[in-house]
Parts: sequence; C-alpha cells; structure tokens
Amino acid sequence: MARLTEAQVALLRSTSFAAVATLKRDGMPQTSIVWIDTDGEHVVFNTRNDRAKAINLRRDPRVSVSVFDGESSYRYFEVEGTAELETEGADDHIHQLSRKYNGTDFHTPQNRVIVTVRAARIFDYQVS
Amino acid sequence: MARLTEAQVALLRSTSFAAVATLKRDGMPQTSIVWIDTDGEHVVFNTRNDRAKAINLRRDPRVSVSVFDGESSYRYFEVEGTAELETEGADDHIHQLSRKYNGTDFHTPQNRVIVTVRAARIFDYQVS
Repeated sequence: MARLTEAQVALLRSTSFAAVATLKRDGMPQTSIVWIDTDGEHVVFNTRNDRAKAINLRRDPRVSVSVFDGESSYRYFEVEGTAELETEGADDHIHQLSRKYNGTDFHTPQNRVIVTVRAARIFDYQVS
Repeated sequence: MARLTEAQVALLRSTSFAAVATLKRDGMPQTSIVWIDTDGEHVVFNTRNDRAKAINLRRDPRVSVSVFDGESSYRYFEVEGTAELETEGADDHIHQLSRKYNGTDFHTPQNRVIVTVRAARIFDYQVS
C-alpha cells in the first residue's frame, strides 16, 4: 500500500476539493467533485448510496482521486486504488464534513456512505 | 451529441479548473487536473503527448471531464464523451491558455496536444 505524506494528509484536512473517477458498467469513466477527508492514513470521502459513484464502486471498487490545493491551485496529488464502503456512521460523517466546509450541520444527512480509498499508487503533480 | 449551455460555455472561458478521467490499459481510471478551454461548442484542454492522459486517450478515447465553478465551488458540470487529439497548433494553444490563467506565455510550449471532447452526455451537479 502507498503511504500519504504529511503534506498530503494536511491537504486532506483542509477545505480543498477533490475529483473522483469511478467506472460505469461499460467501463466508461465518470467524474465528480467531492468534499474530502482523511482518517490519517487514507483518502476518505462521503457520498449517497444512490449516487452513480456509490453504485459504480459497489460493482467495481477501482477508483482514482485527485486532490487539489486551493491555496496553490497548480499543485495536486492523485491516489489510485480501491474503495471500501461503510454506511455505519456515514450520516454523522457528512455532518462533520459540512461543519468543516460550511461551519454548519448538513441539510439532509440521510442514506450516506463513507468511502475509504486503499491507495495502490500516489503521485504528486502540477497543472500543465 | 449533447450541447453545452451558455452558462457552461462561460465557465469554460473563465479561469476555472477541471478534472479529467481517462482509462489505463487495464481499465483503471486515472484523474488529473487541467486548465480548461472551449471552441464554443466543445470542452477543450491541452496536455503533453507523453503524459498518461494523452497516451491513454490514444488507446481508448473515452473521457469524463468535470468543470467546477471557482466562484461558487459547490456547482460543477460533467461531460462524458470521446476525445479527439490534434497536435497542430497545440504549442500555440498552450500559450493562449497560459495567458488566460497566468497572464504570460507558457514556459515550455513543446510536444503539446489539443484534446477536444465530443460530448455524449452532460450533467449539472452540486457538491455533496
């Protein structure tokens, strides 16, 4: 398993946004933008069970996440790996994320799922 | 082919960033963050011929791009489609993009390729 650096963990604890790619049934990539989190070891995000990315990840756990630095938007890192989905605690977790990004609880904390990425590879990049 | 709205074209003309997902040889998704552009009809970006996304797109043109609104970072749109690659004019094109984002010419305008996305589907989304 690839390990996150301290700088990457710090970025995951900030209010940066990330892009997630999952695979549709026919293998076509699908992207979305998410709030981002970490348990100190992994990239973590939260989605709804009925969103395309959760449905895709239950069928095929392969995932890529690019996390971009809002302060220096020319730098980002990419994690490639597999996703583990956990619904327990996920409604509370979206409140935590909402408080980090918005300062308030989440409006509709229902049917959520926590996605934890087991990183096979991690790359640091610069835009262009 | 799906058509961009005026608001989507305007966002592509701004200095927003976008996330691109392509497919590796084994079908694994790969994401990266790019500068974004439009010819008025398509999502357009620019990369280097030796970058993973150009190599991936020459093998499998399926692509997803999410363009996020830097002013209102809770909104974004996703384009799913296929990529066409053109090297002619690509070194000039990276100068144009660099002037849009940085106000100056690009530092090393070499070995570039313009990627134009033929959109099969376009979706408007909101983060979380």
